[in-house]
Amino acid sequence: MALNFEIIAECSQTKARLGRITTPRGIYETPFFMPVGTMGAVKAAHTWELKELGFDVMLSNAFHLYLRPGHEIVKQTGGIHRFMGFDGGILTDSGGYQVFSLSDYRKVTDEGVHFKSPIDGSMHFFTPEKVMEIQAALGSDFVMPLDECPSSVADESDVATAVNRTTAWAKGSLESFNRFGQEHQSLFGIAQGGIYNNLRKQSLEEILELDISAIALGGFAVGEEQSAMLESINDLTDLLPKGKPHYLMGLGYPGDIVKTVALGMDMFDCVLPTRLGRTAAAITSEGRLNLKNSQYRDDDSPLDKNCDCKVCRTYTRALISHLVKQDNISGLMIITHHNLAFYANLMKEIRKAILENRFGDFLNEYLKQSLIPGV
Amino acid sequence: MALNFEIIAECSQTKARLGRITTPRGIYETPFFMPVGTMGAVKAAHTWELKELGFDVMLSNAFHLYLRPGHEIVKQTGGIHRFMGFDGGILTDSGGYQVFSLSDYRKVTDEGVHFKSPIDGSMHFFTPEKVMEIQAALGSDFVMPLDECPSSVADESDVATAVNRTTAWAKGSLESFNRFGQEHQSLFGIAQGGIYNNLRKQSLEEILELDISAIALGGFAVGEEQSAMLESINDLTDLLPKGKPHYLMGLGYPGDIVKTVALGMDMFDCVLPTRLGRTAAAITSEGRLNLKNSQYRDDDSPLDKNCDCKVCRTYTRALISHLVKQDNISGLMIITHHNLAFYANLMKEIRKAILENRFGDFLNEYLKQSLIPGV
Repeated sequence: MALNFEIIAECSQTKARLGRITTPRGIYETPFFMPVGTMGAVKAAHTWELKELGFDVMLSNAFHLYLRPGHEIVKQTGGIHRFMGFDGGILTDSGGYQVFSLSDYRKVTDEGVHFKSPIDGSMHFFTPEKVMEIQAALGSDFVMPLDECPSSVADESDVATAVNRTTAWAKGSLESFNRFGQEHQSLFGIAQGGIYNNLRKQSLEEILELDISAIALGGFAVGEEQSAMLESINDLTDLLPKGKPHYLMGLGYPGDIVKTVALGMDMFDCVLPTRLGRTAAAITSEGRLNLKNSQYRDDDSPLDKNCDCKVCRTYTRALISHLVKQDNISGLMIITHHNLAFYANLMKEIRKAILENRFGDFLNEYLKQSLIPGV
Repeated sequence: MALNFEIIAECSQTKARLGRITTPRGIYETPFFMPVGTMGAVKAAHTWELKELGFDVMLSNAFHLYLRPGHEIVKQTGGIHRFMGFDGGILTDSGGYQVFSLSDYRKVTDEGVHFKSPIDGSMHFFTPEKVMEIQAALGSDFVMPLDECPSSVADESDVATAVNRTTAWAKGSLESFNRFGQEHQSLFGIAQGGIYNNLRKQSLEEILELDISAIALGGFAVGEEQSAMLESINDLTDLLPKGKPHYLMGLGYPGDIVKTVALGMDMFDCVLPTRLGRTAAAITSEGRLNLKNSQYRDDDSPLDKNCDCKVCRTYTRALISHLVKQDNISGLMIITHHNLAFYANLMKEIRKAILENRFGDFLNEYLKQSLIPGV
């Protein structure tokens, strides 16, 4: 197995843990957050900004890179690390989620999923094997199997079918991964189950029987109440093996991260900091700021007075507000950089708090602050 | 006078010189190129990228900052350096050129120019005094007077009128500058004259009679033949005082810069590297590359094999081509960074060649290469 995971420190007040993932490519301390470069680049940020900010692992997407430029092009031009210009770790999502959320047309069978390309309408067929083949060509470090993500309004029997398929596909994925996965690659498992706790547990138990390197919880934060989500995650993390990394897919808000680190989650990804950045919304210690609001036009303070990122050391809210009003690309780059810095700093603080065995206090302090809307 | 200019080295083969501009804010070696941040930011580049690349002086624009966010806002929020997040030198163009090129409606009188805002259609009146007042509020280091830029198809009598007005306005500007210019600011003079050599000389002589810190040649590269332009600049530079910086406004292509440094020009600005970057055109040692061309989709080489900028060390043409095809902001940021690096490196090589008294050879070598189209 290409991935080794050790626990460095555990919090005595919560289920939080400080870990270390070692791969042939590098060593990554958990809990960590992965900026999302779905298409091969984080929008509005240079990869060297990510490295400078302390992000060691990025996320990209097999579905998107398969459609454009094609996984064979990525392979021919040196593999995904060379392609993205990022020498840290790279996790590729299988594209299961995208097939279900982006395609106008899809037809799921036990063998896989037929779907129409959202780009040119061409027909494609993803099987567990195909998705392993794509990710083997890409050469990402952390590989995700094909899963079926039921709609958030699916009824219990549909979700049960999806859970069964996800298990069967995980087995197929593992078999294919063992045949043509690269030596430096590690396969994750994904447990689904929607809002049905019995199906969540069934899915997790079935996936955990497989010889996978790490376990991911998928399909959370798709519209359910936050309290129900946290309760469900709390139940599930009691069943997770301590010796493997726990990845909570697609979350989230800084508050979600802090709360689920406390439940034992180790890895996170979310488009939030970058997507919000491109809509002129800054994530700050004072909450979410909409730089389109005219109140900032003569505000000579930094974006976040408690942040010492390059943006907060360089620019005023007045400038950012001015640029945003003119749809100047630089305005979006500036907010994106700060938002990423906010996440990078949050993860550093989380790791430090666990190491110093005061993460419970950190959580309580954070819960008080997070009355601030939007963060 | 806030600006001091010394010549450090002169080329024995050409009129090129290596100089040093000292202001209360900093020391800047000439010849230099100023990236253009018309609206208060260079589009698709962070100011820290400019500093890292070695750009010590930036250009911004009084016309644009007057209209948005307003010069008073810039003043209230700490002045233009704080506003733009740039602690190097800042030159502000007066906006004369923009009044003539961007406004649907303008009416020129001897007192100034009435114009309609291209943003909201509101009416404004720029006088030499008003333009000094705006730039005093901004607090830029290098201040340009209001000038009249005749259209490139104006006949000789119209250009003569514009030259006379430009001289009268320069006198008015100097008077106002002496009254309310800030201590760290320096006023430049601008000579016009279109394609009429007699008017060019008249304008230059009249402007040089004034007590200005540096002299700018305006209204070149507006459609005339390059050979005629170079001949005219060559004639004019014989009349320029050696002890003052010579600024060639709005040029240009790398080849223009090399050729006019040889004629004695010291300062340059142009939107070319950044504007081309945003249209996916890279300026390289092999000429101009259009990254929209499909030939680059599987090209694993760097943008420019003779460049060691961060972009060329980090990304392949394949990635950039992929991003550009998807209109991904990051593609434009990447090309913009490289194009700026190309200019920064060119200016460093120019200064080194002058210092080592081999700029004539450098020029000859460059002229051979610049058979390459577009650079």
